[in-house]
Amino acid sequence: MTNSSGKDVSGAKKPADNSEKEAVLPPKSNFSEWFNTIIDIGKIMDVRYPVKGLYVWYPFGFGIRKRVYSIIRDVLDNSGHEETLFPLLIPENEFMKEAEHIKGFENEVYWVTHGGKTPLDVNLALRPTSETAIYPMYKLWVRSHADLPIKLYQIVNTFRYETKHTRPLIRLREITSFKEAHTVHATWDDAKAQVDEAVLLYLDIYRKISIPVLVSKRPDWDKFPGGDYTIALDAIMPDGKTLQIGTVHHLGTNFAKTYDITYENENGEQVLANQTCYGISERSIAALISLHGDDKGLVLPPVAAPIQVVVIPVLFKEGTEKIMAACDKVVDSLKKEGIRVETDASDLRPGAKYYKWELKGVCLRIEIGPKDLEKNSAVLVRRDTGKKEFVPLDNIADEVKSRLSAMGDDLYDAAKVRQNALIFPCKSLPEVKEAIQKGVATISWCESTECGKRMEDEIGAGILGIPIHQSGDSGTCPACGKITPKIVYVAKTY
Amino acid sequence: MTNSSGKDVSGAKKPADNSEKEAVLPPKSNFSEWFNTIIDIGKIMDVRYPVKGLYVWYPFGFGIRKRVYSIIRDVLDNSGHEETLFPLLIPENEFMKEAEHIKGFENEVYWVTHGGKTPLDVNLALRPTSETAIYPMYKLWVRSHADLPIKLYQIVNTFRYETKHTRPLIRLREITSFKEAHTVHATWDDAKAQVDEAVLLYLDIYRKISIPVLVSKRPDWDKFPGGDYTIALDAIMPDGKTLQIGTVHHLGTNFAKTYDITYENENGEQVLANQTCYGISERSIAALISLHGDDKGLVLPPVAAPIQVVVIPVLFKEGTEKIMAACDKVVDSLKKEGIRVETDASDLRPGAKYYKWELKGVCLRIEIGPKDLEKNSAVLVRRDTGKKEFVPLDNIADEVKSRLSAMGDDLYDAAKVRQNALIFPCKSLPEVKEAIQKGVATISWCESTECGKRMEDEIGAGILGIPIHQSGDSGTCPACGKITPKIVYVAKTY
Repeated sequence: MTNSSGKDVSGAKKPADNSEKEAVLPPKSNFSEWFNTIIDIGKIMDVRYPVKGLYVWYPFGFGIRKRVYSIIRDVLDNSGHEETLFPLLIPENEFMKEAEHIKGFENEVYWVTHGGKTPLDVNLALRPTSETAIYPMYKLWVRSHADLPIKLYQIVNTFRYETKHTRPLIRLREITSFKEAHTVHATWDDAKAQVDEAVLLYLDIYRKISIPVLVSKRPDWDKFPGGDYTIALDAIMPDGKTLQIGTVHHLGTNFAKTYDITYENENGEQVLANQTCYGISERSIAALISLHGDDKGLVLPPVAAPIQVVVIPVLFKEGTEKIMAACDKVVDSLKKEGIRVETDASDLRPGAKYYKWELKGVCLRIEIGPKDLEKNSAVLVRRDTGKKEFVPLDNIADEVKSRLSAMGDDLYDAAKVRQNALIFPCKSLPEVKEAIQKGVATISWCESTECGKRMEDEIGAGILGIPIHQSGDSGTCPACGKITPKIVYVAKTY
Repeated sequence: MTNSSGKDVSGAKKPADNSEKEAVLPPKSNFSEWFNTIIDIGKIMDVRYPVKGLYVWYPFGFGIRKRVYSIIRDVLDNSGHEETLFPLLIPENEFMKEAEHIKGFENEVYWVTHGGKTPLDVNLALRPTSETAIYPMYKLWVRSHADLPIKLYQIVNTFRYETKHTRPLIRLREITSFKEAHTVHATWDDAKAQVDEAVLLYLDIYRKISIPVLVSKRPDWDKFPGGDYTIALDAIMPDGKTLQIGTVHHLGTNFAKTYDITYENENGEQVLANQTCYGISERSIAALISLHGDDKGLVLPPVAAPIQVVVIPVLFKEGTEKIMAACDKVVDSLKKEGIRVETDASDLRPGAKYYKWELKGVCLRIEIGPKDLEKNSAVLVRRDTGKKEFVPLDNIADEVKSRLSAMGDDLYDAAKVRQNALIFPCKSLPEVKEAIQKGVATISWCESTECGKRMEDEIGAGILGIPIHQSGDSGTCPACGKITPKIVYVAKTY
């Protein structure tokens, strides 16, 4: 086999320790080990690249990435965004212009200082994010209110010199798949409306890959460097820690001031533009793998699965041609419907085949044996529920399609139930302290920075954010005792 | 309008000299100026990014890039290649391993030396190409003959510290769109077969975007650093100089030796693997623009055009609703067929509209006025030929589809005729010297390096390569007088 499923360009065959044994997947309850192992034996990334924090996408992992990013592109293209591409290298003088922004990034920026053996006149930063590359061009492009809004995005590699412990998909020195959008608007309110739209678009994207998220406004001391405010999307990982998987920033006129982005309004006056930016990275894939996977391996939503269906002929000494012919017919009818399907007619034992395809997160397994063929039916097994059904061969494509469609919804619902079980409403800081060992705590907060910081100190963990949807019920701020209608999320974070 | 055609995120509005005037396209006979101008007013790239050799893709240009690269992906995916993604940064020690290779690149490599303010322990090269990033992993992945062949590709940004004059799409410091494939095979012959296949795939890709190419084997002194031999694809640009738009390298076991890539053969022996690599960059877009464009602007093959059809209502004081309704109906029926169509109902004069959409290379213009509507027909104008036809409205989608399909073929044929007219068979070096002022010369060559170098010196230009398809007719090597069946291409190159 030469496609993404079959060809074993395989780390597992020659593992880092040079033993011949393939790693065994630990139970998902041991999440950290489970994640590291599934990244390897699930053929997502090879972690043995010889630079810390840089990883290699296996073709199979890239197949998931490709499908998720195609969803992201579609959602953005269909909402008036246009794709573009700006340079990676940012000259030091442009990069250093926005003081707050720089403070946020200066310790993590990689610098190019030489071309060949020649020192460069101006050092070049590898973009950690592209505000300072894009906004000097926006200065040239924005002239009149008629030019606005501008809504561009790009999908690029960005770089952070991480000194913390790095992890594939989660904490990287090269973020290989940063989707960043940058918009320009006439007014602060227009930009706010764009922030609200972006949050909805991101929710749409995550719903499409069956991932429930928490949406909250970051506390002021944790917003984007140089922005007015930040709305973030977080997934609750199986170990209860949250993973930030999307951020949307209202930049106000802060960058417009620095980069001189002005437009002529209807009265002929030059006015500073308002801006937003918002991003999603391959952490989206980390969440996808972590929220849906199980003790047997990957579980992939059908829209993201490189292989959606595997057909397994159950062969005995006699009648193999008939069985193979029936399998081929099934494969043909599925391919006609655009379903990504493979046949496994290898010599492996049935159990070994199930193990192999379950590990890869193939959504549905179809088994066809002599007894099935007698009844003109097949056995169909769902990866997520393990449910086994007998379905007629005659309209197998429809049966498969309806189950793939249901699986996307069911995965979301199941993940949502697990998410809800990991949110713990609390009344006191000791309760919060206990709750965040298992998941996300909620607690009332009067919204003063002083109380916020005091709470963080006492808990030993950060305020994640203020949920954008609040019940409106009142509670007591545990730091000052004030009655307040606002609650916040508190969590340990990745 | 908010899509790639309408929204003027426009350099033209605020040109580099800050005057308000839009640049006027010079005739294509003045090719160099024509190219620079079409890149700007055709909204391909903005050249005002503040680092030499780095450019910004406008959304419209990116729309062309996206479609061409989708063709490239399809061709590779359908021939057993798998997409992957390797890190940009290559540690100095890995990069420096292959001596020949390094010699070829050491003066053009950008070096990252600092993370934040901290000097790095090991300097990191920005990949100029990815052999030295990928092959250490191939060492881990290749174990047995059963693992072979491996055929991977990636589409990435690569970097060259160009000291020569830089140009958008042609000579860049950041190549934003490098498609590089890297394959591993058991034998030298298997790798040779892959080289042959890759050439055919590239010809297929270029045929799909209507670009005729010369295919030749590079002379030994011009092959890929570290490879056995190089086959290259060149387009003849309108000024007669050639543009290398694809290369395919047989690497033999050279890199396998350096990076210790061995496999166990059927007899249980460890054997060095053979490798190939082949690449295409955004020079493909440069050729596309240059070969098809004309004095009015871009001419885009339908498969690459962000907008394939523009519908222009011809409006008078009366009956505008009827005309607009007819236009909407046409647009609907075209969209149903997946055709990329826009309506221009703006206040511009018809002439200004024609100018605008012709400049953008829109393949077909449909005009609908009151007289057309009376006859239940529309006027259809082809961008490449200017040919005007009256077609019935009832099956407009079929009429459009057949013309778009014909246009792809006709563009290729026309470009092929122009290409042939730029190839000059020569019998002597003075003839060659004259011919390369206008195009590509062919001249006999005995294949000795000595004669080749002597010819190059006398001509003052390089041997491009030995055509892979030779007529077999004999001629005389002008340097030594030997009779030889081989001819070579000689050309000035970009």
